[in-house]
Amino acid sequence: MDKNKTYVLSVPSAKAAFERTNIERRALRPLDILIDIKFSGICHSDIHSAYGEWGGGIFPMVPGHEIAGVVAAVGTEVTKFTVGDRVGVGCFVDSCGECEYCLRGEEQFCTKGVILTYNALDYDGDPTYGGYSQKIVVTERFVVRIPESLNLDVASPLLCAGITTYSPLKHWKAGPGKKVAIVGVGGLGHLAIQYAHALGAEVTVLSRSLNKKNEALSFGADHYFATSDPATFTKLSGRFDLILNTVSANLDVDAYLSMLRVDGTLVNVGAPGTPDQYSVFSLIMGRRSIAGSLVGGIQETQEMLDFSAQHDIAPKIEVISADQVEEAYGRVLRSDVRYRFVIDISTL
Amino acid sequence: MDKNKTYVLSVPSAKAAFERTNIERRALRPLDILIDIKFSGICHSDIHSAYGEWGGGIFPMVPGHEIAGVVAAVGTEVTKFTVGDRVGVGCFVDSCGECEYCLRGEEQFCTKGVILTYNALDYDGDPTYGGYSQKIVVTERFVVRIPESLNLDVASPLLCAGITTYSPLKHWKAGPGKKVAIVGVGGLGHLAIQYAHALGAEVTVLSRSLNKKNEALSFGADHYFATSDPATFTKLSGRFDLILNTVSANLDVDAYLSMLRVDGTLVNVGAPGTPDQYSVFSLIMGRRSIAGSLVGGIQETQEMLDFSAQHDIAPKIEVISADQVEEAYGRVLRSDVRYRFVIDISTL
Repeated sequence: MDKNKTYVLSVPSAKAAFERTNIERRALRPLDILIDIKFSGICHSDIHSAYGEWGGGIFPMVPGHEIAGVVAAVGTEVTKFTVGDRVGVGCFVDSCGECEYCLRGEEQFCTKGVILTYNALDYDGDPTYGGYSQKIVVTERFVVRIPESLNLDVASPLLCAGITTYSPLKHWKAGPGKKVAIVGVGGLGHLAIQYAHALGAEVTVLSRSLNKKNEALSFGADHYFATSDPATFTKLSGRFDLILNTVSANLDVDAYLSMLRVDGTLVNVGAPGTPDQYSVFSLIMGRRSIAGSLVGGIQETQEMLDFSAQHDIAPKIEVISADQVEEAYGRVLRSDVRYRFVIDISTL
Repeated sequence: MDKNKTYVLSVPSAKAAFERTNIERRALRPLDILIDIKFSGICHSDIHSAYGEWGGGIFPMVPGHEIAGVVAAVGTEVTKFTVGDRVGVGCFVDSCGECEYCLRGEEQFCTKGVILTYNALDYDGDPTYGGYSQKIVVTERFVVRIPESLNLDVASPLLCAGITTYSPLKHWKAGPGKKVAIVGVGGLGHLAIQYAHALGAEVTVLSRSLNKKNEALSFGADHYFATSDPATFTKLSGRFDLILNTVSANLDVDAYLSMLRVDGTLVNVGAPGTPDQYSVFSLIMGRRSIAGSLVGGIQETQEMLDFSAQHDIAPKIEVISADQVEEAYGRVLRSDVRYRFVIDISTL
């Protein structure tokens, strides 16, 4: 096979079955890196995209933005990486590089529009194809280094789930003396607990039931409460500096706001499909905020990987083969995964 | 009349007519100030309270928390004021003085519960009566000095409307290089425009129609757009660092959020009676926030008065007599006031 051709798992149209097919990756430009992908994580947003739930899907589609692999070749002007380096690619593969956000390392807010790793058109108008693939070509600015102590399989989900939780915890200053609540113990939540703990915050987990209590404590939680018990909200009234909500379902926002201290913030990283409601009084009484956070920039993604290695933070994963992706999608939709599926690309 | 007795305008029960009656103010304690009230502003919240709309009203009720007057007597340990000083009292008359919020001058968030100027019970369990009154007794910690260059009539609305708008503009750092939008040109909005301008921000006014454009520009607005024109929202997409919403009606929150830059905040100082709705996507895309702000502390209230004097900031007011209060309430409810009613207490 031509060296730019690569086998991929692709959906030909919304909700169609995955098929093993091949695509052509672009010839290396001077700043490009060719990566042999080893593992590719499954993110809930892959499912929304492949099912065409967010509208405007570009088909055929190759999902995947939690990519871990090894550098196979580099363009003539690449300086950051050499063949054999262990590298990762997350949600983005390009940005303008010139706007105020790109210049300060927050490419996710690029004013020209950041280029998503899949289901997008790049600046040349070519569709982007993601990580359910043996190879990918990415400009070096969007490639990060995976520290030696992190296995590639556990590293892959960090490229989206890791940075999505690490970035808001840093932005809203989770750390010593701060009381942080993590809502939900799933793919995002179980990482958020580990980061908040490693950053030095006092960590409380809020989950529907008590089912995941022992696991949450093992991830570093100091306290754990079930939100199915209405007493939780009165017990924790005015408690938290920061509540990080990792659940993509509609919340009783006022009830969660009531657990914030003065100047506290409820930050959402998952978005339900229907609007949330709140009383403005819940914000005024305590100068509280509701906010959202969108993954993180490339520099911060590297920082997150290094921090993860330094603090032994890793997702719990279930490694699957390429022919198990649809089954895995079904299990994600039933919340039947602890806590993240990763595709072993060697099985593709 | 006994020197602690005072004539007041009082409502005997929710929605009843005001009547001229008298009450007994407490005998001066060592740290108390007796104030001869000269002017008392009418705040929209007076109407909600007197009409019993917020529930739990304490009747008879003497509304009024925009109080300007002259010191008539001081307690034995008062050091801050002497007889004849021009002083003001705002929304609060006591707080614990010991909690972290009191200690940092944010008495509005007192953990023991700040004591409202009227329609509340003080720490002794006695009801508080507000500024529609010839005299009031307040502990010196909750009395502020009105600068010589501010007339007492225009000073009175600053004690609530002024600090309610000044505080969030300072907290969210309105200033040079910042683009600030003020939603609404009413009692609060027309002061917010003046403060945002004096703080050095670029000020855009968003009002339903173009009716108040010339006035808004005279208050210091740089730009003015009508929100009844849908093109306003696309024209101003991603424009503002801060949107201060002074309107107590439900907004199309997502439309307003779309006008914020990355990390921008929509701050509400008025609360509609029914919940607002938002899509979490509007927050995530741009790491935006929705927040609320509650008046301000005593130290900041003094700062606001001094700032107002220094920058010639004053509300536009209509001075009325005591027998015009009900008529004024009706006009406030019809938005038929430019921009704040002030009761001349000498007519009581």
